[in-house]
Amino acid sequence: MAPAASINVLPESDTSAFTVPGRLTIQSVAKRRAAEGRLVAGVAALADVERFKGRTSHLHKAKARRWDHRFSTESNTRLPSSLKGAARYLKNEGMISLGGGLPSSRYFPFEQLSARVPDAGHFDGPSRCSTLHAGKNDLAEGKSDFDISTAFNYGQGYGAAQFLRWIIEHTEIVHSPPYQDWSCIMTIGSTSAIDMGLRMFCERGDWILSEEFTFPTAVEAAAPMGIRVAGVKMDEGGLLPSALDEVLTNWDVYARCGPKPFVLYTVPTGQNPTGSTQSAQRRREIYAVARKHDLIIMEDEPYYFLQMQPYTGPDASPIPPPSSHQEFLDSLVPSYLSMDTDGRVMRLDSFSKVIAPGARVGWITASEQIVDRYRQHADVSTQGPSGMSQLLMYKLLEEQWGHTGYLDWLLHIRMEYTERRDVLLDACESYVPREIVSWVPPMAGMFHWFKVDYRKHPAYPRKSRADIEEEIFHAIIGHGTLLMKGSWFSPDGQGEGDDMYFRATYAATPLEDIQEGVRRLGEAFREVFAIDSVVQGNGNGIAAVQMKALETGLANIHVNGYINGHANGQAKDFGTGYTSGYGNGYSNGGHFDGYTNGHTNGYLSAMA
Amino acid sequence: MAPAASINVLPESDTSAFTVPGRLTIQSVAKRRAAEGRLVAGVAALADVERFKGRTSHLHKAKARRWDHRFSTESNTRLPSSLKGAARYLKNEGMISLGGGLPSSRYFPFEQLSARVPDAGHFDGPSRCSTLHAGKNDLAEGKSDFDISTAFNYGQGYGAAQFLRWIIEHTEIVHSPPYQDWSCIMTIGSTSAIDMGLRMFCERGDWILSEEFTFPTAVEAAAPMGIRVAGVKMDEGGLLPSALDEVLTNWDVYARCGPKPFVLYTVPTGQNPTGSTQSAQRRREIYAVARKHDLIIMEDEPYYFLQMQPYTGPDASPIPPPSSHQEFLDSLVPSYLSMDTDGRVMRLDSFSKVIAPGARVGWITASEQIVDRYRQHADVSTQGPSGMSQLLMYKLLEEQWGHTGYLDWLLHIRMEYTERRDVLLDACESYVPREIVSWVPPMAGMFHWFKVDYRKHPAYPRKSRADIEEEIFHAIIGHGTLLMKGSWFSPDGQGEGDDMYFRATYAATPLEDIQEGVRRLGEAFREVFAIDSVVQGNGNGIAAVQMKALETGLANIHVNGYINGHANGQAKDFGTGYTSGYGNGYSNGGHFDGYTNGHTNGYLSAMA
Repeated sequence: MAPAASINVLPESDTSAFTVPGRLTIQSVAKRRAAEGRLVAGVAALADVERFKGRTSHLHKAKARRWDHRFSTESNTRLPSSLKGAARYLKNEGMISLGGGLPSSRYFPFEQLSARVPDAGHFDGPSRCSTLHAGKNDLAEGKSDFDISTAFNYGQGYGAAQFLRWIIEHTEIVHSPPYQDWSCIMTIGSTSAIDMGLRMFCERGDWILSEEFTFPTAVEAAAPMGIRVAGVKMDEGGLLPSALDEVLTNWDVYARCGPKPFVLYTVPTGQNPTGSTQSAQRRREIYAVARKHDLIIMEDEPYYFLQMQPYTGPDASPIPPPSSHQEFLDSLVPSYLSMDTDGRVMRLDSFSKVIAPGARVGWITASEQIVDRYRQHADVSTQGPSGMSQLLMYKLLEEQWGHTGYLDWLLHIRMEYTERRDVLLDACESYVPREIVSWVPPMAGMFHWFKVDYRKHPAYPRKSRADIEEEIFHAIIGHGTLLMKGSWFSPDGQGEGDDMYFRATYAATPLEDIQEGVRRLGEAFREVFAIDSVVQGNGNGIAAVQMKALETGLANIHVNGYINGHANGQAKDFGTGYTSGYGNGYSNGGHFDGYTNGHTNGYLSAMA
Repeated sequence: MAPAASINVLPESDTSAFTVPGRLTIQSVAKRRAAEGRLVAGVAALADVERFKGRTSHLHKAKARRWDHRFSTESNTRLPSSLKGAARYLKNEGMISLGGGLPSSRYFPFEQLSARVPDAGHFDGPSRCSTLHAGKNDLAEGKSDFDISTAFNYGQGYGAAQFLRWIIEHTEIVHSPPYQDWSCIMTIGSTSAIDMGLRMFCERGDWILSEEFTFPTAVEAAAPMGIRVAGVKMDEGGLLPSALDEVLTNWDVYARCGPKPFVLYTVPTGQNPTGSTQSAQRRREIYAVARKHDLIIMEDEPYYFLQMQPYTGPDASPIPPPSSHQEFLDSLVPSYLSMDTDGRVMRLDSFSKVIAPGARVGWITASEQIVDRYRQHADVSTQGPSGMSQLLMYKLLEEQWGHTGYLDWLLHIRMEYTERRDVLLDACESYVPREIVSWVPPMAGMFHWFKVDYRKHPAYPRKSRADIEEEIFHAIIGHGTLLMKGSWFSPDGQGEGDDMYFRATYAATPLEDIQEGVRRLGEAFREVFAIDSVVQGNGNGIAAVQMKALETGLANIHVNGYINGHANGQAKDFGTGYTSGYGNGYSNGGHFDGYTNGHTNGYLSAMA
């Protein structure tokens, strides 16, 4: 991956080529609901997905392709749950069930649940909150369509009908899938969905494809299943369609010891770890390659709504936010789902980054056939998400905010992340040495990706790429900041000659800590690469070290940068791993053999 | 399985042979906590299990055996998550993390969570409730050890330290595992734990062992993994140790096309579907067989705390409940975990039956090695349970009830289930024909298991066992009650010559509906088996049918029982499947050729 020095990938230019066609409006949702009548769904009720989609709304579209040739043995030998099947008799009027082993809600020791949540339209100013209530028997008492009795009991693998309806509508509003028989099922989080998706499509010995740097959990989930991950080259705009085509076209089953892959795992927006976002055009090209090679696209999109305003630099004035929901939706890079005429996309959505990870609620959207396979697995493993989570989310998203309020919230989050990213980028401009480190401003997600020109390390090439990465990692920790090593994100591992990266996040750290954290890592880079520091250190420290150096006969010490960097008082934090690395590096420069000659003293041993 | 006609398996006699040794007391928990100091655990904090167990409390015990020879390829190739590993650097004081992609709690749109729960000690009388509150920053503000900021963010695979501590203490209070390095990890429910446990131990082509009737979800989870389930004979006291030993000793790898199994999946208490409970003596014998053949015991115990008072019959006075926590704990059949000196038991606990299934929270207890493997899988798939659930459960169980109040609650549940079961059993005595149907009063769980002497069916043996089962199933539905077919619970399938069963539950149905449901199924049995009805039908109905029968020349119709049963007005509910079955059955008796001869009329066709 070779990021250009500083390219702003503007969302405007990305979406101009493509607008999600026939997008459902929030007004149309209201009409559809009115036409379909009130939703009545009790304990473990089956969800009528067709009704939630509007019975006739999608009949003009072609059906998804069938994926029988793509399912694994595990998936192909799944049968529907016999016990869940018996639930269909419960529809008979007056039926007394002595059948299912569902406990009585009398024995749920929760009578009422309440949550204080911010009011839609008041996210930015002084906080204004409302309190939502869910009672035990709200459904029977006509107070709500969902309650503790229902949510806290067993449910179906796809989650509760009440909340699934909202999810289906939201999905249609945002993505408007262009084929007829798309469907949604809740997940207990996208991490689990990756695990279950891999088991659905892959056999031991298979390969899947991903970006050349990718979410390590996906790789770590795949490896024990005997599934290997082949990284595909990227640039600053994400996965390269030509590289994808090339890998597939020239796949050598003997060299790879495995069949040609047909699952592409991709994080198209605010990719983890690179922060890159595929443009609409890029997605269309990749989708064309997917059609050519008949791929399933596993579109993992936790950061989709963390698309931000364009970065304008430290001194420019910010670009105003979208002025309407329509403008907001149009500003989003279109998803693979929105262009998926074949039904070959399994899209993973998550509330983790925009509501709360602890909810453990997400959903997938895919063809009915894929969703059915997923549900059959969920019914005998994860089951649906926590009913406590579903009830709280339903109260917030369906009853309190509605689709409108949720879009307001997403817009609010967009602006908050924009501010966080800008603080990080501004700090980078101030503190991080451009001679060594380069980056592209991310336009989405939580991550910033530093490229490090490690060949400028004083000890290169005597010291290996991996050792230099380790040295930098610990130097940054020594300075009191934690970044993630780029090599952790490489599914194939990295070797000599590959580029070096570090991942930073601006998601959670307080703004002032982001600045300080970047200042520290800038220092660490300066120190490791022995370059001039811009830091206003304490002159006494420098003088003391210089004096000590003179005392111990190290008159020819290379003081610029190195000693300046040290003068910041961070030396005491250096760990053991760092010690040897640094000693080597320096002596290589020919300026300082104090360490190897045993001339170290208080200050200098601390430095080493 | 051959249940004796009516054996009361009394809990007293079961536990007299065994008392869980060295049981931790609630007072000792308090002392241990005081000695270990306050628990401070922020977002995704690591849990110090040793501390929760009491650092020196278990050192006198031997360590668990190692299970390296039992783990699957999948489990053996799992590596720890690299990203979760980097979290250890966050312990460094003053560290600014730009590392982990955790969102800021500022963007969780929940400021406060409240729940109204019943007060401990007031479960039986008029309801008295308290309201529990969880704020966003209670931890930082010193109001609580757990809060929204922590619970709603990402966490570790074993769940939040705060709640895990409570679970570990509870486990020790109840089971006191007799080896040193036991550990606990939360699950998202036992169904998921079964799925993950099977993947941990088994390869495609393997067999596992279970009761001859078992939880279908376990079988349905195993089958797509290529894992087959061999049923082991039971009696009214559950799995037979001799049968287990016999299956293992004589395992024929060629006939079975698979290696000798080493995983026993068992539900020892209130087994699903049979309702049987293994006595302490039975468990010790099975554990001895497990040692002999080096088995892993997957002890699935959702119904452990649904152990009830002995059934004394319709007219006897009830036995008073345990008068103290100690007496209550001593009344429980000891678990496999409590006798597991080898660490070969993976125990699955669940809150689903005693708090709420929708929580999707359970836990496993096993040797540290097994728990570590489980966690490594959870870290890249399910992750921990919903933080929303964990926070609510923590507020209730840790802060409101404590261990004492929870035992009070479990005792309350015990008495409630006792009442439910007794209503069902009393109704069975009144309505279910003993000539055809027999049963053993369950002493634990949710389920009642009817054995049906299908050889007394008028059409037997011309009509197959499977067809008679189907006929009865639909006849019961036709009468407005739903039972589950026994054959659904047979992992091997059932054939001619095997006994026939139906499963009923008394868990959730209102008491009056339990009675009515049993009355209906009694009717259905009478009808199918053409025996005298005790039902007080409407004489007009009978007369009308008799008259019609005479009118159409069917003078030799066998009116007793058959016509009486029909006179109840249920005939119109019969489905299509039922029709042919019934016509056959009756004409076999030689009394009624109306249907086959085309002599049916309004009433009679409805009956058929």
